[in-house]
Amino acid sequence: MGDLVLAVDIGGTKFAAALVEPDGRLLRSERVATPPGGDAETLWTTLTGLIDRLGMPHRVAGVGIGCGGPMSWPDGEVSPLNMRGWQGFPLRERLAARFPGVPVHIHNDAICLAVAEHWRGAGRGSADMLGMVVSTGVGGGLILGGRLVDGGTGNAGHIGHVVVEPDGPRCRCGGRGCLEAVARGPGLAAWAVSQGWSPGAADLRDKEDLYQEAGPATARRLAADAAAGDPVALAAMARAGRALGIAIAAAANLCDLDLVTIGGGLSQAGPPLFGPLEEALRDHTRMEFAGRVRAVPASLGQDAGLVGAAALVLAAETYWSAG
Amino acid sequence: MGDLVLAVDIGGTKFAAALVEPDGRLLRSERVATPPGGDAETLWTTLTGLIDRLGMPHRVAGVGIGCGGPMSWPDGEVSPLNMRGWQGFPLRERLAARFPGVPVHIHNDAICLAVAEHWRGAGRGSADMLGMVVSTGVGGGLILGGRLVDGGTGNAGHIGHVVVEPDGPRCRCGGRGCLEAVARGPGLAAWAVSQGWSPGAADLRDKEDLYQEAGPATARRLAADAAAGDPVALAAMARAGRALGIAIAAAANLCDLDLVTIGGGLSQAGPPLFGPLEEALRDHTRMEFAGRVRAVPASLGQDAGLVGAAALVLAAETYWSAG
Repeated sequence: MGDLVLAVDIGGTKFAAALVEPDGRLLRSERVATPPGGDAETLWTTLTGLIDRLGMPHRVAGVGIGCGGPMSWPDGEVSPLNMRGWQGFPLRERLAARFPGVPVHIHNDAICLAVAEHWRGAGRGSADMLGMVVSTGVGGGLILGGRLVDGGTGNAGHIGHVVVEPDGPRCRCGGRGCLEAVARGPGLAAWAVSQGWSPGAADLRDKEDLYQEAGPATARRLAADAAAGDPVALAAMARAGRALGIAIAAAANLCDLDLVTIGGGLSQAGPPLFGPLEEALRDHTRMEFAGRVRAVPASLGQDAGLVGAAALVLAAETYWSAG
Repeated sequence: MGDLVLAVDIGGTKFAAALVEPDGRLLRSERVATPPGGDAETLWTTLTGLIDRLGMPHRVAGVGIGCGGPMSWPDGEVSPLNMRGWQGFPLRERLAARFPGVPVHIHNDAICLAVAEHWRGAGRGSADMLGMVVSTGVGGGLILGGRLVDGGTGNAGHIGHVVVEPDGPRCRCGGRGCLEAVARGPGLAAWAVSQGWSPGAADLRDKEDLYQEAGPATARRLAADAAAGDPVALAAMARAGRALGIAIAAAANLCDLDLVTIGGGLSQAGPPLFGPLEEALRDHTRMEFAGRVRAVPASLGQDAGLVGAAALVLAAETYWSAG
């Protein structure tokens, strides 16, 4: 069992952990709701309890961690949005103390999703890709020349803060007109409500745990209403698709990409989203080299975060550059 | 003399060549105007004649080439804009045949300028930077993790085609609202003329050979008029500065940069350009990690293209990834 890796995926709505085989398959996994309002030690004991429930083997070959940002990297002091109990919490160090003598690697959750798609998902075989997640937030991870790009502080891939409407809506980051401000689920749903949309009657259950959305007026419901032909919902999907296309074009022009994978709740919206996305992307990638970029849905499901976290250890030569 | 490198810099207005010492100093250089309308062999004999004028030593350690794009890379079949005689011309192969047994490396001219700034200019010591040139075109080169990023086809760094105004002016690439469409010299000068600007009386001489501009209504003159307080010229500089700030913010957010260097004619415009640039950049880099990025003028002059071309050979471990 010495070649199994422990993968941990920490989000605002749930904690997940798994024992992962060298090929990326999950041998066993467990999950638990994030304790609302939990303080630092409550969150920590929730995590260690979850790990214990896996029935840990005597040795694991390493620990891979995905965690909501921001964090200091590579030392892994985490301050996840919507998790006030962990502000500057030394998550990497604490797990390293619990699993001495093996590598403990960490990255933000959006980067882990991108890594998963590149390693075992829709991005397999691409040397130059952006893996995106569009949900409550809009994030991503960048692979160039066949390797994960960290950037100067471990924050490369923040496509959500590329400007798509210079005078557009305010963003959570304090900026204006960011892709995230336009296309994140709650922002898009709020825009649709402002345009007269009221959520349809379908009883939809959110299956997406990562970046989960709460309340009735969700982007998932908006996508379902768009699929059913609601004109305002369709306009909202077109608005998000255009914004995504513009931002993806920027990334393709700047980084000479061949592929962009799009995961998260909104990526399930199908043609009402991907049609306008594709149109905007083609309008803004007119250089010959950039015209080859393809934007496709991510192919891994809810375990993607765990698979990507495991890859930080299992394929460290590709996805881990730090000490 | 076996450790000298031959550097060649091919542009629409001039050809330049130099013998470059291992530390990047130019031992000797020569330049000649690009023969207007020259066919393929006329352009080639112009280049070989220029090289011969250098008084070539018996051996050089290699040849570095910067050439206007587009080109196929790394094989180096070049099709420079505004040089109809060379369309698919095998420049790298022809120079390799003339200098057998030594490395012959090639990249586009904007990438060579970025490499020069990183190797010997304002970008020295930065691990994560974008080197830009703003002139008749707007181009760039990307260095991440201390190495030049090529992207899938050698075209990484095309910041000029990041969208800054989704419904903005048409671009030469066929797109709309690209940074280049707004901020390139001729576009900016045309916009100023449309707003009532008429070029001032100052007899300015273009000293910038790369991306040179022709005619009286140039961005260089516009910059001089802005410095003298002309309100329309000031508005034009602010317009370009804002566009640059938005595009640089996109690059900083996506690639986690610490530095952007800006060269080319417009970068000489000083506060009327850099003030609005800085303001837009700060407005759109609100994530903590991105707020550290600095935008500074490039520090190398008209020989930068030759220095960068030489670095493709002299510092190949950093700037050359291909065979």
